[in-house]
Amino acid sequence: MTHDMVRPGGRTARVREAVLRAAGDLLAEGGLDHLDLGEVARRAEVGRTTVYRRWGTPAVLVADLLAEMAETSLPRTETGSLLGDLTANARLVQRTLADPRQGALFKALIAAATCDARTAEALHRFYEIRIDEWAPCVAAAVERGELPAGTDAREVVRAVSAPLYYRLLASGDPVDEAAADRAARAAVAAATAGAYGPTRC
Amino acid sequence: MTHDMVRPGGRTARVREAVLRAAGDLLAEGGLDHLDLGEVARRAEVGRTTVYRRWGTPAVLVADLLAEMAETSLPRTETGSLLGDLTANARLVQRTLADPRQGALFKALIAAATCDARTAEALHRFYEIRIDEWAPCVAAAVERGELPAGTDAREVVRAVSAPLYYRLLASGDPVDEAAADRAARAAVAAATAGAYGPTRC
Repeated sequence: MTHDMVRPGGRTARVREAVLRAAGDLLAEGGLDHLDLGEVARRAEVGRTTVYRRWGTPAVLVADLLAEMAETSLPRTETGSLLGDLTANARLVQRTLADPRQGALFKALIAAATCDARTAEALHRFYEIRIDEWAPCVAAAVERGELPAGTDAREVVRAVSAPLYYRLLASGDPVDEAAADRAARAAVAAATAGAYGPTRC
Repeated sequence: MTHDMVRPGGRTARVREAVLRAAGDLLAEGGLDHLDLGEVARRAEVGRTTVYRRWGTPAVLVADLLAEMAETSLPRTETGSLLGDLTANARLVQRTLADPRQGALFKALIAAATCDARTAEALHRFYEIRIDEWAPCVAAAVERGELPAGTDAREVVRAVSAPLYYRLLASGDPVDEAAADRAARAAVAAATAGAYGPTRC
């Protein structure tokens, strides 16, 4: 192990950053079919051997990109109210999906996950981490008595993102700020009414 | 124009049905990359020339498959209550997405739409038709006074499907009946609270 490999800001970290940046650009431009490791090396200005030795296949590279995206995602915003917090979450997701590069990248990652189990696993892990990051704002609302006891915090967070992804991937309706704000309002209303509480038998 | 071409149950219709069935099978098995027109012809037991002349490219074939899926989708169920109707809708979507062939087919169609504009247009049209089919149950609930005037019926229908597609495509959580029933309950609760009403300024 070289000295660089244990220093976070060292050459190894810089190489990873450049390679994942190039991989993300290629995915956003043309999807998984476009993700050629030689081209990644060229764009990242890194030796081909380094890229092939460290990542080996496009699927491994995509999984590492998703891991990095989870690591570097923004922490949640704390506004003091559930509607404020979930609106902040919805707008963050909306801005990401509406951004030309990021939106195309997410489409490519989701498409890649439909036909590769390893990519699907990395994608699910990414959402698991993001949901874990935001779930405490729902738990806090339960503690404040804004939501019924037993509310499934993670399901409320999923409910905020779901309408935005449905528009992006299925119906094609615009992923705009109005859709984000409505997603947050709907999740709060449904949670308040107990729709994410323990299932009644 | 031959006699067959104007008779719905005729040879032309039978050829289309066989070809689209084979196309759907290939998409479900291996995604768009798997959709070879020669293989479609072989499986459908139809001449290659017929397939190439009538559909020409995989994108045209996928668009025709989506058109047929919209044409042959089930009509909405009328149960007399909004929760009953939307639960029927949610369970129909859930059974479709959880079915091995249908679920894989939808994943393949959505993945194909991320990298082809024509397929995306056909996919959006499919959802537009399905949303139009179910929106009247929400409009009827508004008429009965169950929901606030000005409720966006199509947005309520989108809200029922969204959590199921989010699970299928993004988070990887199970697309089960509990998720379907929760999606319907949440949509009703949010709509009742006015979350899909005219936006407040």
